[in-house]
Amino acid sequence: MTTAQTGAPVRELTFGELYARVQNFYAHHMHLLDSGAAAEWAETFTEDGVFAPPSAPEPIVGRQALAAGAREAKARLDGIGEQHRHVLVSLDLTPNDDGSLTTRTYAQIIATPRGGEPRLFLMCVTYDHLVFEAGELRVHHRRVTRDDRP
Amino acid sequence: MTTAQTGAPVRELTFGELYARVQNFYAHHMHLLDSGAAAEWAETFTEDGVFAPPSAPEPIVGRQALAAGAREAKARLDGIGEQHRHVLVSLDLTPNDDGSLTTRTYAQIIATPRGGEPRLFLMCVTYDHLVFEAGELRVHHRRVTRDDRP
Amino acid sequence: MTTAQTGAPVRELTFGELYARVQNFYAHHMHLLDSGAAAEWAETFTEDGVFAPPSAPEPIVGRQALAAGAREAKARLDGIGEQHRHVLVSLDLTPNDDGSLTTRTYAQIIATPRGGEPRLFLMCVTYDHLVFEAGELRVHHRRVTRDDRP
Repeated sequence: MTTAQTGAPVRELTFGELYARVQNFYAHHMHLLDSGAAAEWAETFTEDGVFAPPSAPEPIVGRQALAAGAREAKARLDGIGEQHRHVLVSLDLTPNDDGSLTTRTYAQIIATPRGGEPRLFLMCVTYDHLVFEAGELRVHHRRVTRDDRP
Repeated sequence: MTTAQTGAPVRELTFGELYARVQNFYAHHMHLLDSGAAAEWAETFTEDGVFAPPSAPEPIVGRQALAAGAREAKARLDGIGEQHRHVLVSLDLTPNDDGSLTTRTYAQIIATPRGGEPRLFLMCVTYDHLVFEAGELRVHHRRVTRDDRP
Repeated sequence: MTTAQTGAPVRELTFGELYARVQNFYAHHMHLLDSGAAAEWAETFTEDGVFAPPSAPEPIVGRQALAAGAREAKARLDGIGEQHRHVLVSLDLTPNDDGSLTTRTYAQIIATPRGGEPRLFLMCVTYDHLVFEAGELRVHHRRVTRDDRP
């Protein structure tokens, strides 16, 4: 669902339309990550996209580095036989004057071992700066905090 | 909230309107299941609705079979004193040209024993084909996969 | 995002617009609670707002009492080094003829100890009556049930 498809310029989208698109974008974005589609996941960032996770000493910058990180994480999980799911809930959305979006979400990371019961692995808060590129949402900057490390 | 009530033909609904209605439909649909309203839950499928759960050897077809399955499941949970909640999150929605909708959601099933702490019982992915019947959403086909059985 | 900002009277908002605003309101409302902004959280209730939690013998009435309760709860959690997150999902929204809203949500309360793994602490159902005041959503009445106490 692109802006081009609906014919409405991004600036004219109502709050409800923006809210639904961001939720849908996050669902798509995180499913790519969880299913190991590392390159496609990296494409949902801007070319110079930044991801500052709580576990990395330095922010990860750019699609190539983002894809490499996602591939490594997936390989590690495959190695231990665990499926992770990143669930972004409780979206707090602020449209900015320049057409970009500021969001805050609660992020549940759920881990399920092969043959075992799922568990809440991490509870985080995700702070994003999103932009539209050719009508498509992209993550421009992401910062994540972990509840176990206040 | 039906299309008839809002006066807008389904085809003219924006992405945001569709997205909200599907989320609201799922909340209603799963609350019926979780509260044991088996017949009402079955009514939220089409007459020939199909539910292919990961635990059943064959898909469940039709409202009568769906209601029977829901009643059995609820009776079993009542017997062991457990309340289950089916939470569909991370909705990825694709409107189809014929007016039907294709969705993918992450499904958390949360189990709470009487007097005990809740736990994540199952983490699943749900793939639905939804249709509008007289302005009301209905599940036409559902397939569910479990993260513990890759 | 207020009605004043968008220029649309509340009565003219579509279902999708209302649905997004309620979700966004809940995200904001619960983040205030979880981050210990007790007074600001109480402001998201009406002046005579009522909160009937399952753990209190009597409903909590009015912003002063609500703020005091939130402050106490946060101090207790800080004392034991736990971060709680209130996640409202599966929103079932019914707009009323008088412009107010009736909602039912599933509420996950997730607890994360400093240095430890998160856990589902409580699974609840939340029943709200929401009203618009000067274009802003406010909780007028809230009732919560716990799944472990059927």
